Amino acid sequence: MAKEKKLVEAITSMEEDFAQWYTDVVKKAELIEYSNVKGCMILRPNGYAIWENIQKELDRRFKETGVENVYMPLFIPESLLQREKDHVEGFAPEVAWVTHGGMEPLQERLCVRPTSETLFCDMYSNIIQSYRDLPKLYNQWCSVVRWEKTTRPFLRSMEFLWQEGHTAHATEEEAEERTIQMLNVYADFCEQILAIPMIKGKKTDKEKFAGAHSTYTIEALMHDGKALQSGTSHNFGDGFAHAFDIQYTDKDNKLQYVHQTSWGMSTRIIGAIIMVHGDDSGLVLPPRIAPVQVMIVPIAQHKEGVLNKAYELRDRLAKSFSVKVDDSDKSPGWKFSEQEMRGIPTRIEIGPKDLEANQAVIVRRDTREKIVVSLDEIETKLAQVQETMQQEMLERARAHRDAHTYQAANYEEFKELIANKPGFVKAMWCGDEACELKIKEETTATSRCMPFEQEHVADTCVCCGKPAKTMVYWGKAY
Amino acid sequence: MAKEKKLVEAITSMEEDFAQWYTDVVKKAELIEYSNVKGCMILRPNGYAIWENIQKELDRRFKETGVENVYMPLFIPESLLQREKDHVEGFAPEVAWVTHGGMEPLQERLCVRPTSETLFCDMYSNIIQSYRDLPKLYNQWCSVVRWEKTTRPFLRSMEFLWQEGHTAHATEEEAEERTIQMLNVYADFCEQILAIPMIKGKKTDKEKFAGAHSTYTIEALMHDGKALQSGTSHNFGDGFAHAFDIQYTDKDNKLQYVHQTSWGMSTRIIGAIIMVHGDDSGLVLPPRIAPVQVMIVPIAQHKEGVLNKAYELRDRLAKSFSVKVDDSDKSPGWKFSEQEMRGIPTRIEIGPKDLEANQAVIVRRDTREKIVVSLDEIETKLAQVQETMQQEMLERARAHRDAHTYQAANYEEFKELIANKPGFVKAMWCGDEACELKIKEETTATSRCMPFEQEHVADTCVCCGKPAKTMVYWGKAY
Repeated sequence: MAKEKKLVEAITSMEEDFAQWYTDVVKKAELIEYSNVKGCMILRPNGYAIWENIQKELDRRFKETGVENVYMPLFIPESLLQREKDHVEGFAPEVAWVTHGGMEPLQERLCVRPTSETLFCDMYSNIIQSYRDLPKLYNQWCSVVRWEKTTRPFLRSMEFLWQEGHTAHATEEEAEERTIQMLNVYADFCEQILAIPMIKGKKTDKEKFAGAHSTYTIEALMHDGKALQSGTSHNFGDGFAHAFDIQYTDKDNKLQYVHQTSWGMSTRIIGAIIMVHGDDSGLVLPPRIAPVQVMIVPIAQHKEGVLNKAYELRDRLAKSFSVKVDDSDKSPGWKFSEQEMRGIPTRIEIGPKDLEANQAVIVRRDTREKIVVSLDEIETKLAQVQETMQQEMLERARAHRDAHTYQAANYEEFKELIANKPGFVKAMWCGDEACELKIKEETTATSRCMPFEQEHVADTCVCCGKPAKTMVYWGKAY
Repeated sequence: MAKEKKLVEAITSMEEDFAQWYTDVVKKAELIEYSNVKGCMILRPNGYAIWENIQKELDRRFKETGVENVYMPLFIPESLLQREKDHVEGFAPEVAWVTHGGMEPLQERLCVRPTSETLFCDMYSNIIQSYRDLPKLYNQWCSVVRWEKTTRPFLRSMEFLWQEGHTAHATEEEAEERTIQMLNVYADFCEQILAIPMIKGKKTDKEKFAGAHSTYTIEALMHDGKALQSGTSHNFGDGFAHAFDIQYTDKDNKLQYVHQTSWGMSTRIIGAIIMVHGDDSGLVLPPRIAPVQVMIVPIAQHKEGVLNKAYELRDRLAKSFSVKVDDSDKSPGWKFSEQEMRGIPTRIEIGPKDLEANQAVIVRRDTREKIVVSLDEIETKLAQVQETMQQEMLERARAHRDAHTYQAANYEEFKELIANKPGFVKAMWCGDEACELKIKEETTATSRCMPFEQEHVADTCVCCGKPAKTMVYWGKAY
């Protein structure tokens, strides 16, 4: 019992210290191990398996829209990075530089890719000749490096895993359409699979990606009321095409510049899963993304028939679920704590009495509801429980977000809300970057996005009081 | 027709210049694009899709043996790389060094991982405490960097994709068992999926991995008679455990060092697929690894009903095969050439006459055999054709290898064979590294492995004439 208490006690309560709670969960659920490489994290099996499931789901959705996967070099020569002016300004301060290969200094230093626009552009300029070569819809799964000073597991680290899609199109319209299409793929994936509702919108010029004409984003609200940018999709227009000379011959035999997009989602989204759904017992994973969906815990497993029944049940359920039996020599209570810490969506308890009654007990991770079911119909019941849990997790997340979304008509209200009510604040903005900067400086809140679903919450800019037509979601963010 | 001729003519014949043939296939089949980053390749969709299939198959096989995936940092601090003496000597001369992060020089330089033994050891020393924590069976899919001066697509490049498994065990026996188990996983995968027969054996001390007690290898013979090391599995004993202080408390509460293994397979194996199965029309992919297994080519596609029938057939076949329709405005002959160049295992031709007769023509990529089949049973027939093709490709590869495997009783025979008969030479070896070095210097052949299936082809060492008990496969290698 002493050991069991220790496991539970070791987690800080969310209300007491959210940041510490987060770190505790990440460590105790064995998602991450800190490495001796400053700023780099080790993704342990429990953490990496979540990423594998995210990959599988997203990759399928990408491919359904015609996207193909490629792999580009890890390194970018300095001269290539410098080709697009805004882009290099955005990224050069935060890249890692390779200066030596083997024993010899390099003639030109190479940066470790912080993102691969320049490499894709360089390739596209070689392989695109005619309108027949368009569109190019390429994506890659890889790691990127950004030299961050402060790091937090999943949310900010020197190296992180992501996918980056890079497309080239014949027309401006097609590029814009693809930009929005991929944003929708991200938002649908987050809602349907991760049970996280998203605000879809456009970034202000100040917040957009280095080199982009426009950046679209999906923004989620964490349990502590802070926002998390969860995926972005950029329309580059023909800016990179001019910088990298990517031209094609159109049907009238005229040279035209291509229009490009890029879009990315990273392991950061695992931070969102933790901070949207987790509780004081640890992680809570939506059934559709959980690497292990069901943990069978035998009760009094030394009693005759119990373990065999548990294995039999596992083999039955394995046809439709990802399922494991915890047959270790730990006590059931200890096993429950571990299963809860790891966020496994459902637990099945089965002991000697259940065997007699031809039943088992399903326990939901989120509500802890216990459902006694006959073994004859356990597949159906389990599927129902997981489906209900998935839906209710999304509803709860949406209700939490809506309950923490406020609106402000003037600067006093705005400052009051930002200071005292963690959450999103909807407020009008005149479009002037000066107002954005002032708000950030005085409140630490940033413009999260100009949502596609606009509302007219006031006539004037929340900051300067001048006429304003655009509603912006503001908030403190990770 | 001019264009079609050009595509076919553009490939150098294998017999004329095998190296140029290889380069032509890699480029024309659009597997690879050279990048402006010296020594780095771009894996294009046709190439990367093969790697994705390899990953899927291998990953499933790994997981069936209990392996879990993780992700480790890209960088290794210099002090960590230096911890194991043999290992650093083997790798330090060929690593890329990061010396600056953002605008600032680093206090300690970091190398880009050439392999991750040191990182795994560092983690294992943190997370392994008790015998209950063992075994650890971790693997990662990633890219690694080795500063190579000369590079060739897939076979040798500065950066390449691979998987590296790293395990830790309580006993020496368990580690040895795992080393052999993973070698068998590789060999079975290569035979069953890639249709490439492998020689399994042990590397000599000279050829073993830096820091390993023993290295096992699978060796394949390419069409030109050169060998290709296709996968390796290393037993480290407790050498790394001592260097990194990885100890656990055993059941008697005594501290013990763990025993470790590592094993890897890389994109190099795609080079083997090309060089074992390819022909003068391009790539030939075994059906079980082909990203597209069937290309439907409509004949006279402007005629009524042809295209619709092709789409209908695609939708039917898509339930069991990976299938595409080439409905582009190219001529059938051009489409045939492209499909052959890309190595798509089977083509289905369907035209107006076939529609009338309720039939289609299946064409095998390897033998070009044409099989007329009724549309009513095309699924079954196609499955049979692909199965036969898969088996026959393996048999042909084995026959080719066996026909190019020789044996030498003395040094004269050996030199004669190496100089004039491309292939493996089986010959006895006394165990002295001096003989290995002499053979390499005088013939450029290297010891490929000491095969598990030993034969007694002579009483004495092929080089020095002293008594010898070990038979070695020798050959020139990629």
